Amino acid sequence: MLTSKREKRDNQFGEWFRQVLIDAEILDYRYPIKGCGVWLPYGHKMRRLVTQQLRNLHDATGHDEIQFPIMVTETNLRKEAAHIKDFENEVFWITHGGLKPLEIRYALRPTSETAIYPMLKIWIRSHADLPKKLYQIGSVFRYETKTTRPIIRVREVTTFKEAHTSHATLEDAEAQVKEATQIYKDFFNACGVPYVISRRPDWDKFPGALYSISFDVIMPDGRTLQSGTVHSLGQNFSKAFDIQYETLDGEHEYIWQTCYGISERGIGSIISVHGDDNGIVLTPLLAPIQVIIIPIPHKKSQQSIMEACEQIAEKLKSLGFRAEIDKREELTPGAKFFHWELRGVPIRIEIGPKDVQKEQIILVRRDTFKKEACKISDLPSQLPQLMDQISTEMREKAWKWMKKRIYRVDSLEKANELLRKRAGIIELFWCGTEECGHKLEERVNASLLGTPVDIEEKIEGKCLVCGKKASNLVRVAITY
Amino acid sequence: MLTSKREKRDNQFGEWFRQVLIDAEILDYRYPIKGCGVWLPYGHKMRRLVTQQLRNLHDATGHDEIQFPIMVTETNLRKEAAHIKDFENEVFWITHGGLKPLEIRYALRPTSETAIYPMLKIWIRSHADLPKKLYQIGSVFRYETKTTRPIIRVREVTTFKEAHTSHATLEDAEAQVKEATQIYKDFFNACGVPYVISRRPDWDKFPGALYSISFDVIMPDGRTLQSGTVHSLGQNFSKAFDIQYETLDGEHEYIWQTCYGISERGIGSIISVHGDDNGIVLTPLLAPIQVIIIPIPHKKSQQSIMEACEQIAEKLKSLGFRAEIDKREELTPGAKFFHWELRGVPIRIEIGPKDVQKEQIILVRRDTFKKEACKISDLPSQLPQLMDQISTEMREKAWKWMKKRIYRVDSLEKANELLRKRAGIIELFWCGTEECGHKLEERVNASLLGTPVDIEEKIEGKCLVCGKKASNLVRVAITY
Repeated sequence: MLTSKREKRDNQFGEWFRQVLIDAEILDYRYPIKGCGVWLPYGHKMRRLVTQQLRNLHDATGHDEIQFPIMVTETNLRKEAAHIKDFENEVFWITHGGLKPLEIRYALRPTSETAIYPMLKIWIRSHADLPKKLYQIGSVFRYETKTTRPIIRVREVTTFKEAHTSHATLEDAEAQVKEATQIYKDFFNACGVPYVISRRPDWDKFPGALYSISFDVIMPDGRTLQSGTVHSLGQNFSKAFDIQYETLDGEHEYIWQTCYGISERGIGSIISVHGDDNGIVLTPLLAPIQVIIIPIPHKKSQQSIMEACEQIAEKLKSLGFRAEIDKREELTPGAKFFHWELRGVPIRIEIGPKDVQKEQIILVRRDTFKKEACKISDLPSQLPQLMDQISTEMREKAWKWMKKRIYRVDSLEKANELLRKRAGIIELFWCGTEECGHKLEERVNASLLGTPVDIEEKIEGKCLVCGKKASNLVRVAITY
Repeated sequence: MLTSKREKRDNQFGEWFRQVLIDAEILDYRYPIKGCGVWLPYGHKMRRLVTQQLRNLHDATGHDEIQFPIMVTETNLRKEAAHIKDFENEVFWITHGGLKPLEIRYALRPTSETAIYPMLKIWIRSHADLPKKLYQIGSVFRYETKTTRPIIRVREVTTFKEAHTSHATLEDAEAQVKEATQIYKDFFNACGVPYVISRRPDWDKFPGALYSISFDVIMPDGRTLQSGTVHSLGQNFSKAFDIQYETLDGEHEYIWQTCYGISERGIGSIISVHGDDNGIVLTPLLAPIQVIIIPIPHKKSQQSIMEACEQIAEKLKSLGFRAEIDKREELTPGAKFFHWELRGVPIRIEIGPKDVQKEQIILVRRDTFKKEACKISDLPSQLPQLMDQISTEMREKAWKWMKKRIYRVDSLEKANELLRKRAGIIELFWCGTEECGHKLEERVNASLLGTPVDIEEKIEGKCLVCGKKASNLVRVAITY
């Protein structure tokens, strides 16, 4: 029996990833501008299901969807000092309208704080306007100087969900950071993607933030991918953009802000974490086609087989499943299996002449390739159960896989050895000072992901750099 | 009884339109870059319902949704000669990435032919790849030198649905033009917006097209708004981008192409055509809230009124209606009526103490302000009927309004008089030559919309410029 092999995925991840994006018709990266790709029809459908999850989670927690322009004036981009410092080197600049130079340059937004916050100044007047929780989904742009990779490091990030919230107090903003973290946990759990949550070291936080929290996913090659971030902005931006509200007492105070984002890297991690050498593997929630029905041709019974296929497809659609029949006559069943395995369709239904006689079908799972027979009459009750089972097992398997790739070590030598092997994430003790942090990064030739936000236990040890008492673990990894 | 007045809408349309966009929380145009606006939460919900209609219509006719990058290389933008000639003066140019000048300039796509067609060259190999029908929804950019207006004439068109189709023969492409025209008719009919369809004069066609067909809507001030266009591209672009396919006989032929687009001007025409001095008026299909339930407070019966509201809301939601209760305690019922009338909610339900006793509610239509009582138990059957009735009557009323504003005249004096009064669209005889066309435009100081595509009858007359026999009517209007 076929099983889910992951040799190519794990040993030649970069090539596997790039190829599977084209083969599974997700994204074509051969666009004439570096760092820009085209969402293909199947990938676009998956992308819509992913963004729908994000919309559901944000709508359910009182966020309103909006849409801001893509261009930002240079004046506004420069308002928050730390922000412009980091982004200045990676912004695309628009200098001409038609044949004439513009009076003031426009930047393609690298993220939308400097687009949105001038409008918050207009919209927010009093405490009654707070909290204000907004989000949008759209493109942001970075002139990446590092090696670009489809979905993982691009110049047009086409699917950036960014939320921006405004609050009356620091406490409210801190509570929002917690809500945002929970939303992202729910999102990644729904997608079956395991993660660690770390507070980034101060020198690696979002430019303009008080602090940043990151969701990192271990990719099949042992490197980590930052897949979601939550930032507490304090009053840095509200002071730069002069956003004040009137309190109950008639005083004027600057608002407290947070922002948080997830890009198509979320989709990249879904594809990478669950995929295998046969292609991508999708959870039913995110699958454009959840059930593909494949007739097994047989001359004498051709008509009754096709009728059974049609009846099942109609029944499943009426129950709300995304089900299709592959009717192509020019392809063998084997070629069809291959086609839909590549595209990660979670469940395949095969119907041959004997099945029709027995009033049954064969169910095949994409994630495990397990086959079982099922009475046609049982399908409406069996299918939801099977889908739940697939989702749960895919998530659990992925978490198990990740947890094996997190190592707690007590020496830099061990850390080094594991990182050289691209083993995953290393946790070790660190005193928390910037000095030791930089030395650590240098000595292990890797990056600090930051201190765990998702570990509750109190532990103590000694900083592996200076030897002083340390109550902080820090995570280290080779990052994308 | 309140009736739908349209004095302000018709006499101060520009001001009415700009104000209603902010008051009804559709779009805020106070963004620091000219020609760019922000979709507000309520407007964004409406926008999503409109784009969903476009998606449904395109998906149902075999179009696949894709998403292309926003940047186009200068080299590709320049490939089709007529195309670049028209767009060169209105393209935003990106010249720098970070602090460095780019080796080649990028344009913000003014429309996506030059982004998409280089990829079609990769994707299309043989007749088996044809027809290929793609569409996307996203932003396009024009450095407009004319006066900008929210939604109507902008620099970032945020909601451009553009379809691009590829065919083996001219006949197939011509059939596609017909299908596209039907899709747009269906779209505008679903939105209740009346239109005329005209073939643009040759000097006003889409740059690079064989010919262009336009859907024009008469706005309340008598000017017309081009709200949708369909173009037959012939082989102009396929030759420029070298897109060939292998025929059944093994020959190589250039593909035949069409493209067609609808922008947020569609939303602008919905708002303008149906709106009145109380705000916008939405058909149930496009209303983010279809039914707003307003409790009429009464001390003794407060609890039973609220219970009735909750029960009705729950029932309506379970039946798939978008229904909400306005529970705000700080507002009077009158203030709530005003609030939701402004936002165009098609149906208001009022429940007061007497209604609860009688187990009835009061239904109020936004489009006519007609009130009627309805038994609570009848609501599930009455509501769909009422919604259908509203949609039909809004559409019919709008068509009636428009038809009165189309005048067929037999002299340039009459045309002039009507156009000076901003009466609407003028139809008159024209011999069809470019010379007479330009003279006509000059003499009536208006634009030729083109020859009617939606008039079947054969008619003949004399060209009002040269006096020669003319079998063509032409439409003339003051355009946006």
